[in-house]
Amino acid sequence: MIIKTPTKFFLVSGSSDGFSLLNAFDGALLASGVGDTNLVRMSSILPPGCKEIKPRPASLPQGALVPTAYASIHSDVPGEVISSAVAIGIPKDPNLAGLIMEYSARAEEKVVAEQVKKMAEKGMELRNRPIKEIMSISATYRVVTIGAVFAGVVLWD
Amino acid sequence: MIIKTPTKFFLVSGSSDGFSLLNAFDGALLASGVGDTNLVRMSSILPPGCKEIKPRPASLPQGALVPTAYASIHSDVPGEVISSAVAIGIPKDPNLAGLIMEYSARAEEKVVAEQVKKMAEKGMELRNRPIKEIMSISATYRVVTIGAVFAGVVLWD
Amino acid sequence: MIIKTPTKFFLVSGSSDGFSLLNAFDGALLASGVGDTNLVRMSSILPPGCKEIKPRPASLPQGALVPTAYASIHSDVPGEVISSAVAIGIPKDPNLAGLIMEYSARAEEKVVAEQVKKMAEKGMELRNRPIKEIMSISATYRVVTIGAVFAGVVLWD
Repeated sequence: MIIKTPTKFFLVSGSSDGFSLLNAFDGALLASGVGDTNLVRMSSILPPGCKEIKPRPASLPQGALVPTAYASIHSDVPGEVISSAVAIGIPKDPNLAGLIMEYSARAEEKVVAEQVKKMAEKGMELRNRPIKEIMSISATYRVVTIGAVFAGVVLWD
Repeated sequence: MIIKTPTKFFLVSGSSDGFSLLNAFDGALLASGVGDTNLVRMSSILPPGCKEIKPRPASLPQGALVPTAYASIHSDVPGEVISSAVAIGIPKDPNLAGLIMEYSARAEEKVVAEQVKKMAEKGMELRNRPIKEIMSISATYRVVTIGAVFAGVVLWD
Repeated sequence: MIIKTPTKFFLVSGSSDGFSLLNAFDGALLASGVGDTNLVRMSSILPPGCKEIKPRPASLPQGALVPTAYASIHSDVPGEVISSAVAIGIPKDPNLAGLIMEYSARAEEKVVAEQVKKMAEKGMELRNRPIKEIMSISATYRVVTIGAVFAGVVLWD
């Protein structure tokens, strides 16, 4: 293996306004508690036996490279509502992988949160993999000037 | 070095319909045999001396972080044809790197496969690096409701 | 930790025309001196104590997986000017992380370079983190047929 397989995970979300679209995203990461790390985006599997860190760490080592599955959306339309959510399908069989799904939209949090849970259910169905539970987290934001929301599953060791 | 340099590779491709765009992408990954791994996308070099795994692995360890150069496209237009392809320019000199190119379009497979091979040839030309062979793989899909195709070069060790 | 935290960095930029948008990007990477590596994109922190490599390496090991924060833009509009820039807010306190910002636009280099510096300043302000200096690099290109520019902060060890 080239990169170590993660053994721990936790869920985070946050939102922020900012000076630019990228500053708003950076602010949303800070609000989520992962703002001073280097997120490495990946497609979207919870390794078998991966355990939740509870409570989630207040912070990770600054500058660490952190594999993360995430949803994010930004907007520069004042007043617009934006929402992001992630969901994990946790399998009954602990020897099998879970599935992470991400979804963002210019829509209310409830709509986005429900959609991402359905996506995780459908993905587990496709695998014929019975679900123990669906875990999820979401964030929403009404843009002031330039805003971003972020929701992610952080993998760790 | 921060991350180990890969020494092995293999080519994969697949397609799927799905409940959402991301579910269709997930289905295309499953159809490709890399559906329960965490793809880490990268720009697009075959390390010198990297050897093909033949036949390609039926699966990789679930949840593993897998550096992959890939092309993918999704569509929610029923009846639309979408295609993705990757090509590797393998150099004559085994001490030099190969070049991976990716291309997707709302077009027939043949068009996309030919384009990506030309892209790999042109990139090797730019390096003045004589080509031993061009390897490639492609996938195509006629969308039923919401569909995705995927073609990738998976790096491994 | 899953991936080693980088301890070194350097700034690169370049531009190129190419046979396709991806070939132009590949050419811009070659012009930047990172063309035969596998860039793994990340969000955008300079780890505490990370030191600049000076002069920057003429090249990295071919095929190496290289964590990089970067800005890039491509265009197939002949005559169009495209520019990319990155900036790092280096903190006074060497025990704290720096912040990398990226920005690209269909605009003159000066505009893009000034904007990305402001973005780094604003992001350090949000952290209440006094700045020692802002480092930055940019590139610009007037498209001939199909062109790309690239500016990045390469993390290394």
